[in-house]
Amino acid sequence: MNTSNSTGRPAARPRVLIIGCGFGGLAATRALAGAPVDITVIDRSNHHLFQPLLYQVATAGLSAPSIAAPIRHMLRGQRNVTVLMAEVCGIDRQQRRVQLSDGQSLGYEYLIVAVGATHSYFGRDEWAAHAPGLKTLQDAFALRARVLKAFEQAESSPDPALQRACLSFVVIGAGPTGVEMAGTLAEIARHTLKNEFRRIDPASARVLLLEGSPRVLQALPPELSAKAEAQLRALGVEVRTGCRVVGIDADGVEVQTGEGAVAATERIAARTVVWAAGVAASPLGRMLDVPLDRAGRVVVDGRLNIPGYPEVFVIGDLAAAQSLQSDGRTLKPVPGVSPAAKQMGAYAASQILRALRAPQGQVLPPMPADAPGAFRYRDYGALATIGRKAAVADLGFVQFSGYFAWLFWLFVHIYFLIGFRNRLVVLMDWAWAYWSFQRYARVVAEPVDAVQKAGD
Amino acid sequence: MNTSNSTGRPAARPRVLIIGCGFGGLAATRALAGAPVDITVIDRSNHHLFQPLLYQVATAGLSAPSIAAPIRHMLRGQRNVTVLMAEVCGIDRQQRRVQLSDGQSLGYEYLIVAVGATHSYFGRDEWAAHAPGLKTLQDAFALRARVLKAFEQAESSPDPALQRACLSFVVIGAGPTGVEMAGTLAEIARHTLKNEFRRIDPASARVLLLEGSPRVLQALPPELSAKAEAQLRALGVEVRTGCRVVGIDADGVEVQTGEGAVAATERIAARTVVWAAGVAASPLGRMLDVPLDRAGRVVVDGRLNIPGYPEVFVIGDLAAAQSLQSDGRTLKPVPGVSPAAKQMGAYAASQILRALRAPQGQVLPPMPADAPGAFRYRDYGALATIGRKAAVADLGFVQFSGYFAWLFWLFVHIYFLIGFRNRLVVLMDWAWAYWSFQRYARVVAEPVDAVQKAGD
Repeated sequence: MNTSNSTGRPAARPRVLIIGCGFGGLAATRALAGAPVDITVIDRSNHHLFQPLLYQVATAGLSAPSIAAPIRHMLRGQRNVTVLMAEVCGIDRQQRRVQLSDGQSLGYEYLIVAVGATHSYFGRDEWAAHAPGLKTLQDAFALRARVLKAFEQAESSPDPALQRACLSFVVIGAGPTGVEMAGTLAEIARHTLKNEFRRIDPASARVLLLEGSPRVLQALPPELSAKAEAQLRALGVEVRTGCRVVGIDADGVEVQTGEGAVAATERIAARTVVWAAGVAASPLGRMLDVPLDRAGRVVVDGRLNIPGYPEVFVIGDLAAAQSLQSDGRTLKPVPGVSPAAKQMGAYAASQILRALRAPQGQVLPPMPADAPGAFRYRDYGALATIGRKAAVADLGFVQFSGYFAWLFWLFVHIYFLIGFRNRLVVLMDWAWAYWSFQRYARVVAEPVDAVQKAGD
Repeated sequence: MNTSNSTGRPAARPRVLIIGCGFGGLAATRALAGAPVDITVIDRSNHHLFQPLLYQVATAGLSAPSIAAPIRHMLRGQRNVTVLMAEVCGIDRQQRRVQLSDGQSLGYEYLIVAVGATHSYFGRDEWAAHAPGLKTLQDAFALRARVLKAFEQAESSPDPALQRACLSFVVIGAGPTGVEMAGTLAEIARHTLKNEFRRIDPASARVLLLEGSPRVLQALPPELSAKAEAQLRALGVEVRTGCRVVGIDADGVEVQTGEGAVAATERIAARTVVWAAGVAASPLGRMLDVPLDRAGRVVVDGRLNIPGYPEVFVIGDLAAAQSLQSDGRTLKPVPGVSPAAKQMGAYAASQILRALRAPQGQVLPPMPADAPGAFRYRDYGALATIGRKAAVADLGFVQFSGYFAWLFWLFVHIYFLIGFRNRLVVLMDWAWAYWSFQRYARVVAEPVDAVQKAGD
């Protein structure tokens, strides 16, 4: 069984299975270009998503094809790769096989699991229906529809209380996504929709940003948090820190401020609530049947392996990895950001290449996170945009905010967008798409399980 | 009740209600710019759709925002217009009121009904699930997903019979949409997806175009039909005329060829079937409680009025109108094409302006279609594209096909796209969207009834 793969060809070369083609899976696949392996990339979607700009799709600034590209198109030149749009429903580490929901199973010599994260409602899953999060194109479309329809409903409703609720937008969680969403919503209300309504003034919309901790953008130094908050306020966002959400329903949000004797609850009527607070590892991690951390992430060793399984790598947001700091002594958790996922992908690929060169039958012991050769995360800094001409940047050696930080943010995102699909060319692509054979919009928003329903 | 509108302001000016903002409704609205009336435009969608290029969205050549623009953005400068995204659920011609599904009702002095057409499965509505048509953005997204996922499924399935079925595409109906779809599908299989698959050859896909009548593009002269068919065959499309579809299910299509004793049925296994055969007027026509023709269209007089109701106009695909030919004697039905809808919209607006200038209390009798001043359709010709560098054109005084016809088709479509949203600028828009406040992607694909479900 281990000597043939599903194409019927003899598996002369080691099979590498990569589950998930986000930043981590894509980096691993590319790092194995030209290697003497047969790679199969499995993803539920047909597209790789440039998630840092997903909030722009949700807020109608970009169309989906601008930040999503078909995986098989991106990898078409890499001849050792087969791409399958499929759903994984089981992983058997003993037999080294992966089960797909269409009934097939695929064997592997190396496995990279890179399926990322999803929203966490901290055990309050009933909130999901009222406060959608933002991880997939479908999420972005759903959110876009909600936001635009809220303004529409406000215009068509004769009921002032309903109008107010429609014109109230609550963003929960002031991490980078929450800050970007709140800033952009304020921009839409104050600028984009100007003069388009007759019965309401969209500029009268309230945008609230709720955060449980004492400051926005907690990952940044306090001075930058303060600057970000000031910029948000200047855009018209009501920022409330130290404010705990205790209830969400179709009509709004209930928040608690203060503790103990001074605790007070308040109801905010709002028809649009965005969840940007909690992230949990993808449920696929549970299929691995190994220890998970509190956030549901798979605990990996210094080689990003599941300890005892040197052929299984877990990378990206799904991995609970530690990395030695620049001091060379302290270990810190690797953050769930795209540069970390990319670095892990490249590292896992390098470990596979290394193993291919090692003598047959060599057994690798688990590697401590502080061992030489273990994965080390290189932190290039943090960056968050707040709105037009407003952003904050922390590059470690320097911190800045405002217009210059915003220009820097633009530059960095266009740079990485180019890295992923040559964005400068894409601008021309749009103009010439019709005259050429290439179709930039080959994106299916629904994950594969929706297909099967539609196809049946 | 008739003296105030729903904004609470006294209705000093006559109220014009326009239901539907397709080509007809939009043309009527624009023709009333500056007129002393209060216009309310009601549409289920938040966007006006440039339907002639919808097949390009379905075949992933264009993103949705490229051919759809928010209605209220298009009309923002026209101060006598209020736009409502709402669903009409009743029309009371006696009380001159329109009922919305959110419970509101709006009074009118003039009503223009321009809600267009939908698919007709000739009484076989069970076919709809297996053979989707192409009228809305949602249709286009669903079809895009089907087409792309069929190739994905072929790649991931180890079953050769299923692979064949996945790589078989059937288009039913060889009018302009069917011809465009079939040509583009052949192009995708043979060019766009080249080198992207490892287990299948997308170029081996079959594309069948089935037509019940003896030739494709029946509205064009026979010589052009023959040329179009030859161009389709050159692109790799299997064209079958005189072929009647008698069954459609999840696994394929059953067709009958010949009649009587020579009749034979054949089964074509295909996972993707596109319906481009039948069009019926929107069900809203039935709410008017007036005589409909066989296709469900509302029979109108020469003024595009429901006879006896000079304040109610029915235009576009919903209207069964007659027009005097250039010979000045024979009457012919106005075809269901976008230029006709636009001309009807402008005509209805001109009749309203005329009535506003007429003495109060004047009663207009129904106008015969051959009366002086009745609506006359100006036919500028027909044009259909088949694929890359292939098209046919009939301008009445001249007919041509091939590369030149294709260039002409491009020119005409870009020209009309400009007419609707300044398309040359849109090319730059795409590049600069991020730096500006304007958001070109403000499009909600779901009609309003989907909102209410999502919002509850």
